[in-house]
Amino acid sequence: MSLRGLTPAEVLDKALAGDRHAIGRLLTLVERGGGPADEVASLTHALGQDATVIGITGPPGAGKSTLVGQLIKEATKNGARPAILAVDPSSPLSGGAILGDRIRMDDPDSDSFIRSIATRGHSGGLALAVPGAVRVFDACGFDPIIIETVGVGQVEVDVTATADTTIVVMNPGTGDAVQANKAGLLEVADIFVVNKADRPGANEVRGDLQIMLDLSHMTGREEAWGRRPPVIMLKSLEGVGFDELWQEIQTHRGFLDEGDKRSSRQLLRQEAEVEARLEQILHLAAGDVMKSAAGTQIMAELNSFDLAPATAAQRLAALLLEAS
Amino acid sequence: MSLRGLTPAEVLDKALAGDRHAIGRLLTLVERGGGPADEVASLTHALGQDATVIGITGPPGAGKSTLVGQLIKEATKNGARPAILAVDPSSPLSGGAILGDRIRMDDPDSDSFIRSIATRGHSGGLALAVPGAVRVFDACGFDPIIIETVGVGQVEVDVTATADTTIVVMNPGTGDAVQANKAGLLEVADIFVVNKADRPGANEVRGDLQIMLDLSHMTGREEAWGRRPPVIMLKSLEGVGFDELWQEIQTHRGFLDEGDKRSSRQLLRQEAEVEARLEQILHLAAGDVMKSAAGTQIMAELNSFDLAPATAAQRLAALLLEAS
Repeated sequence: MSLRGLTPAEVLDKALAGDRHAIGRLLTLVERGGGPADEVASLTHALGQDATVIGITGPPGAGKSTLVGQLIKEATKNGARPAILAVDPSSPLSGGAILGDRIRMDDPDSDSFIRSIATRGHSGGLALAVPGAVRVFDACGFDPIIIETVGVGQVEVDVTATADTTIVVMNPGTGDAVQANKAGLLEVADIFVVNKADRPGANEVRGDLQIMLDLSHMTGREEAWGRRPPVIMLKSLEGVGFDELWQEIQTHRGFLDEGDKRSSRQLLRQEAEVEARLEQILHLAAGDVMKSAAGTQIMAELNSFDLAPATAAQRLAALLLEAS
Repeated sequence: MSLRGLTPAEVLDKALAGDRHAIGRLLTLVERGGGPADEVASLTHALGQDATVIGITGPPGAGKSTLVGQLIKEATKNGARPAILAVDPSSPLSGGAILGDRIRMDDPDSDSFIRSIATRGHSGGLALAVPGAVRVFDACGFDPIIIETVGVGQVEVDVTATADTTIVVMNPGTGDAVQANKAGLLEVADIFVVNKADRPGANEVRGDLQIMLDLSHMTGREEAWGRRPPVIMLKSLEGVGFDELWQEIQTHRGFLDEGDKRSSRQLLRQEAEVEARLEQILHLAAGDVMKSAAGTQIMAELNSFDLAPATAAQRLAALLLEAS
């Protein structure tokens, strides 16, 4: 069964009917970017948005993959149909995944869907590919959509900051709470998880976390929820603690659904996506103007030290921008 | 002796006369960004550029700090007056350095200058602060200017790709050669260093590297130099191998000075800086247009699912850009 001759709209029809190959194909189109990705984005956007987006982040090695595997089981047991998007930022030059190549196998007999996403070099790629993939999953009826990120860099914070529910995962005895604080993850967490809670140092991490939450100003998330983010002690390998985690996710969802707070986070995600698209258009326009005749002249004056860098940039901007 | 009441031009006069406090003050202004940073950039840009820029990068833990410490000694012994810029990318939210806070002490009796630079959140910060700091060092007569980066991410590759001479540091037995390849560092290396070369696995790393260089197409740097990048075996703690490293740096500088290749790399750096400044101006303009009346209307249509994200971005771009 080949999908290659079909238009994006035809592939979407098959995906909406539950064809897993078609869903995978849409995700591939989204990941590659360009015209077909925009078409998939437009088609799925028109279907509206309904699913809850859960962001899971934390330092590398915190056991997020195992945790997500168990969370899928717990969600399925409770009648949900989760989709998982594992985000791998790529190397800028080689296109390879810096943080380790991970192959995630999807089980075709399962009702859930697991997909690893990476972007091969195109600028702002993840900022466009992630919302596109979320929308494909949403259109195909998956809920919740779980975004799992690899590290604690800019990409991770950006992705998880706009999730409906953000879960920050830490390990015992590794200084993870301090790392998470430094990376700004305490600010965006709705729920904390201490993974491998049977290991020495688990209670210390919990304690560190409480101290940091005590010391810091109340976070935006904390203030919104009117509640200190809960700290769940998990044993992922044994599957212990996932009923409590799932319950807290439902409690947070219930809070968001009161007063339509969930749709306001959806709007934030949409606006971040449009901003990323706009920046990409401007980036291309900037490249063009630097290569234009007028741009070349400005760069020549810069290079003969007759024009300062700030002035050169202002002149180039004046060539590009309306009424400036 | 307070410098705070002085204009950037007055501080620069003191710095040019050799006042180390004034040099430090200029670097602080550059790091903070904004109007004073632009003024320092303009003043120092007008003085032209002369120093060689050496980029040193490699995986965290490769012993780059110790290596740089020894390299300063070797440079000073050979009559050079080096400046060192240690680049720490910062967390996007907290402003803290994710990769560990490192305090680098500068020795006031030394003829060299060591400075750690981080940017506290302003977008594209390092892309503007690094060239600004390099120019301050250059104006004050330091040569070479050594930029040391912490990790192997986007920032590191960007910074080192435009250095005159790029040195990639690896450790024995850690898969560093494979990591460096994945991160695209093989592409930008003029000189490789295997640090801690007395440890087991040093020759294996050298072998891995040669195999990868054999397998890959000739890199741009390799082709330009007409020579396979040398691999230097160093023992940083004992100071062994630094005479050879310094000699290779001089050989590479000699190659660049033939046919004015060094100034063409300077031009690439300048153009990258102007592009970063232009992108920053466009980023601010994008934020403004999204908040404008017309922009708000477009976002409202997006949020009622009447307008696709790609179309919304195109309409916003049309509001911003001349003749689009």
